[in-house]
Parts: sequence; structure tokens; C-alpha cells
Amino acid sequence: MPVKPFYVMKVLERAREIEKKGRKVIHFEIGEPDLPVPEKVKEAARKVIGNIELRYTESAGIYPLREKIAEYYGKTYGVSVKPQQVIITPGSSPGLLALLKVVSELIGTISYPDPGYPCYKNMLSFLNLPGERIPVSPEESFKLRPESVKTEALIVNSPSNPTGTVYRKEELRRLSEKAFLISDEVYHGLTYRGRAASALEVTDNAAVAGSFSKFFLMTGWRLGFLIVPEELVPHITAILQNTVISASTASQHAALACFEEDVLEELAANVEIFRKRRDFMLKGLKEIGFKVPVEPEGAFYIYADVSGFTEDSFEFSFRLLEETGVAVTPGRDFGYNGTDRFVRFSYCTSLKNIEEGLERLCKLLR
Amino acid sequence: MPVKPFYVMKVLERAREIEKKGRKVIHFEIGEPDLPVPEKVKEAARKVIGNIELRYTESAGIYPLREKIAEYYGKTYGVSVKPQQVIITPGSSPGLLALLKVVSELIGTISYPDPGYPCYKNMLSFLNLPGERIPVSPEESFKLRPESVKTEALIVNSPSNPTGTVYRKEELRRLSEKAFLISDEVYHGLTYRGRAASALEVTDNAAVAGSFSKFFLMTGWRLGFLIVPEELVPHITAILQNTVISASTASQHAALACFEEDVLEELAANVEIFRKRRDFMLKGLKEIGFKVPVEPEGAFYIYADVSGFTEDSFEFSFRLLEETGVAVTPGRDFGYNGTDRFVRFSYCTSLKNIEEGLERLCKLLR
Repeated sequence: MPVKPFYVMKVLERAREIEKKGRKVIHFEIGEPDLPVPEKVKEAARKVIGNIELRYTESAGIYPLREKIAEYYGKTYGVSVKPQQVIITPGSSPGLLALLKVVSELIGTISYPDPGYPCYKNMLSFLNLPGERIPVSPEESFKLRPESVKTEALIVNSPSNPTGTVYRKEELRRLSEKAFLISDEVYHGLTYRGRAASALEVTDNAAVAGSFSKFFLMTGWRLGFLIVPEELVPHITAILQNTVISASTASQHAALACFEEDVLEELAANVEIFRKRRDFMLKGLKEIGFKVPVEPEGAFYIYADVSGFTEDSFEFSFRLLEETGVAVTPGRDFGYNGTDRFVRFSYCTSLKNIEEGLERLCKLLR
Repeated sequence: MPVKPFYVMKVLERAREIEKKGRKVIHFEIGEPDLPVPEKVKEAARKVIGNIELRYTESAGIYPLREKIAEYYGKTYGVSVKPQQVIITPGSSPGLLALLKVVSELIGTISYPDPGYPCYKNMLSFLNLPGERIPVSPEESFKLRPESVKTEALIVNSPSNPTGTVYRKEELRRLSEKAFLISDEVYHGLTYRGRAASALEVTDNAAVAGSFSKFFLMTGWRLGFLIVPEELVPHITAILQNTVISASTASQHAALACFEEDVLEELAANVEIFRKRRDFMLKGLKEIGFKVPVEPEGAFYIYADVSGFTEDSFEFSFRLLEETGVAVTPGRDFGYNGTDRFVRFSYCTSLKNIEEGLERLCKLLR
């Protein structure tokens, strides 16, 4: 089966055409933080480019960064992680890809939530591996229930894309008793009701995928990481040697600066910016008539039910774009389970833009 | 089947241990150029990090770099390449991985040379795809012969790793008449008897994998590219969206500077450095009693027959390391076809180190 492109790319393409004609588009479709990377991180990158030749690193990444991440997980979640368990990857995607392969081979079939991040399914299909879709519903806060899990392994994504759902520690524990958890924690740090729990708080026998692209804002730097049980490390690094070799050396060195205290404080302060945007957008969307069955507690998305306006959220997304210049992501990108009733709004744009976008939507829809 | 790690990693690991004990190791195992990246490229990187926020780029890469590569191929090989055919990848590996998937699905089974770059086989196995190994022998200059090709697609690697073999244009043409060519041109630019021919000189219906890690020296920057028939582009970018998102934005912008005339001249001058090393190492190895059945015409490797010393080049590699502190790559990393008789020497180190390494080998082996 060929890998499907994201539908949002079609939205983005059309948005670019509209922009070329001189019309301002409000981008609620893009899942990429808009805030600036801390100056210290940039300075560290410039320095390392000036000071050393940027050679390949070990496939698991530079040891000091593996140490920093282990320490950060230790401090944040009160768990014990060895640097040897941490693997640096060029963005979280290639790490997740290697992880899905290894878990499928060594542990068993992998389930994933629907709606959910589309790459889970697409990566499994790319690798020609089986996978089980588990429907999650608004009635259950879009959360996976242990009794639905029938496979040896399970992807849990908290805070989740597209719904912003955050799992409680007890919920993770019950899931971890049913299956080996592949815990996609890339949105960790971006939560609006206390911190999210890590799967590592409830079991040592889980694998975590993390990212420098969300809380740390370093999207174009292409840096992520895995934390896995030590016995999986050689299997995963063997795959990374063959599929990516290593992550950008400059990005790895720059990321060391992320863990300086003042940088972490600067990043933590951004959470308030996202919270304000979320609150403002949530209120505005509801006033217009969007239903948001589950208040998002993390990430930077609102998964909104548009059944008050349409029966086809895909067509609706393009209509919104044409008629109001507001771009959103059609639910269809996130699976099959009721996704034609939903669109995803991202609030990775200024309050001013959010206000303007809501006004435009209001004019069309109320 | 789990993906195998490279045996050379075991050599490298042992070499690091020996170095920790204070002994100097001569590294003939590492396939990574040791020369400095041109200052203009570094300056461009520092500038872009200071000037813009590094966001995701399109999965196919920034358009100006796609244009530069198209233009470079046009000028170098006298072929017509559209920027739309060029896809920027984070190193050549993830591009090749996506390409193998798409070619397998749309065109057919892929053959690859043995001995050859180990990732071809490992990537196919990672993707759970069939593949045919084609033995190539010193008697045929380690070249694939058209009559051995029985599949719809074929990987040809010129200059090749590990043998340094360069195919003539006519040889590529005959291969292209038998199968769709996946032309791994990552060592292009590093040739010692005129330039290598590109598959695109003999057919438009081929896919090229290229790299900024060899001639352009930018290993740790993780940047490569594909040039493919236009109809394959959407299939490949859909995979890249799911598996890597995009290449490092700083690296992409920095690489634009590679194509400035004085930078290209600086890089071209490096070829003479590699040529001197090759000539010196080749002479030295032969004097010691290594057989080099085919003089390498490109890349930075010498594939040496060690059957005068041993019947097991794997064990021999570790013996060399322990007894002389010289690290080489065992042939076994490159396949099954006679590889126990061969080791690969890389000349990615100074003439002085090459001299010292040869002296050490001489003492043990003569």
C-alpha cells in the first residue's frame, strides 16, 4: 500500500495560492510552534559551527545530550533513566519508525488510537507491518480504554494530537498492564493543568518518543529522542545506522543549551502564551457554534465538531479556506473514526491572528 | 529479520577502547572525509541561524536548493533536470529508503551488487521487501553485467563503496536497458580519471541518490538529495512527510553556498589531496603484499585482497587492530561474495597517518 500524503498538505498548497494572490490567510492548520527558539540555543549552534568540524556522531547521539535528557526525565518525572537508554534521533519521526519496527519484531502487533497522529498508521504501512486501529470517542475523552487493547503493544499519545487529551498516571498504568507502551510524549511540557505523566512513571518496560520540536520549539533543527529499555538499544541503533546515520551534529550540540536553567524558564513561560490562546480560541469557537466535546489539556490543538455546519468536514475545510481565508486541518487526516465530523484548529499563531480568524469564521457561520 | 549492525562498529568500538588506554589508532576504517567544510558554508549557516527562525521546510526541501542542484547536474553532466525533480533529504539514507519503497511498489524487485554498500540490503530487509543480490567479481572490475540483471530495478553505485569502481557511460547505458536504475551517485566528484557518468546521461527514466557528505564534506550536517522522474515525486514526498518531515533547515540554507564558484573550486582542489593519498596507500599496500585486483578510480576506499595473509578477513581485521593499532573494515560488512578475503581501507586521513599505518602493517606482515 502506498503511503498517503497528509490532506492538510492540500490545504496548505491551496492556502499558498490564495496568499500569492495577495489575500491574507489565517493559518490554523499548521502544527508548528511560532515562538522563537531561545537565543542561547542559537548562540550555541553558531559557536559549534565555528569551533569544530561537524562530523557524524554515534548513531545514538552525542553522550552529553543523552545525559542531559536522562537527567531531565529524572528531574521532571522522578524516574530513573540511564543515558545509555536515550537515543538521539533527527526529529522524533525516524526514531518512532525504528521503534515500531523493533517493537513489532520483538514484542508483537501494535495498536494505535483513531483519531490519532496519522504517521502511526502510515509508518506501519510503510514498514509493511500489521497494526490495529482502536477507536477512541469523545464520550471517553478520546482516551484508549484498557479493555479495548487486544495486541501486545500500544501507542499512547499524551498530550495527544489532534485532541489535546492528557492521560492521568493511573490511566497509563492500567494501559501498561495490558500492553507494552510506546509512549509518544512529544507534546510533553505543553500542558495546561499540571504536567503530563510519563509512561516511565508507571513502568520501566516502556518506550518513550520525545521531541525538541514542540516545547523546545526547534522544529527545523530536526531533533528528537527515544528512551527505551536498554536491551532494545542495539536493535534501534542498528536501524538508525542504516536509515539516518545520525542527527545533525550542530543541532545536537545546540540542544545542550536547552537544559540550562534560564532557558528552561523561558520555555516554561511560553506555556502561558499557549494557554491564553487556547482559552481565547476555545471560547470563540464555541460562541460561533463549534462543539468541542473534550476540553484540550495539552498540545496546541482544538479538535472541533463541525456537525452543526456540515456532514463533510473535508469539503468544509476547503470551503472555509475559499470563503474566509482561514485554513484548518480536516479530521480525515487523523483516521476514520467519526473524523468527517471534525476539524483540527491549531493555535500556533498570535492572539491577534486568532481573533481575526474567529471574526472571519463568525461572519460566515453565524 | 532484524537489521544487522555494521561490523565496522565493533572495530570502531574496540579502537576507542584502545585509544582510551593511550595508544594511537590509525583509522583506515572510517568512511568519512576529514577535510574541513568551506568557510563560506559555515558562515552561511551561522548567518541563517541568526537571521531567521528555523522552521520545517517543505518535505521536498527549500526551492532555491532544489534549483541549485538541478542547475549543478545540468552543468556537470549536460543533462536537463527540473528543480521539481529534486528532493532534499536529511542525508542520502532516508531518501534512498523512501526511493527503495516507491520503486519496489511501482516498478518491481530491486537487485544490488555484492560486495556493495550494506544499507541496500539492510534497507530492503527493514522495509520487508524482496531484493536480489548480484555477485560482482574482481575479474569484471566489480561491475554489474547486464546479463546478470533479472529484476525490474537495479541499484548501481558509481564510484562504488567499497571497491572504488567507476562505471563508463556505455556500461550504465546497457544496464539502463535492462532495468530501472537507482543510481547511487553519492561519491560523484571524487574521481581520479575524469568525472563519473551520471545515470541521467543515458536515460531520463532513472533515480539518482546524491549526498552533501562526500565531495561536499558535510557529513554531520545531514544533507542529501534525490533526483527522480517527476511522477515519483509525490510518492516520495508523502513518505518523507511521514518518516523525516524535512531536512535540517540550517543545513539546507548553508548548502546553497556550496555552489558558489570559489567554493566549488576549493572542493575540486580536495580531489588532488585524495588522489595523492590513494596513490601512496595503493603503492604501500601492494609492497606489503596486499593484492588490489582493481585499481579504485573513485570514492576514498581501497578494497584489498588479504588472502595472502589469512582466510578470514573478519578475524584478521581485529588482529590488525590489536597488534598494530590499525583499524580497517572487514569485507563481511559488504556482503557474502568472497568478502572473507577482503578488507576495506579508507584514506580519509592525512598522508602522515597513512604512512604511519603502512609502516605498522609492514612490521607485522612482511
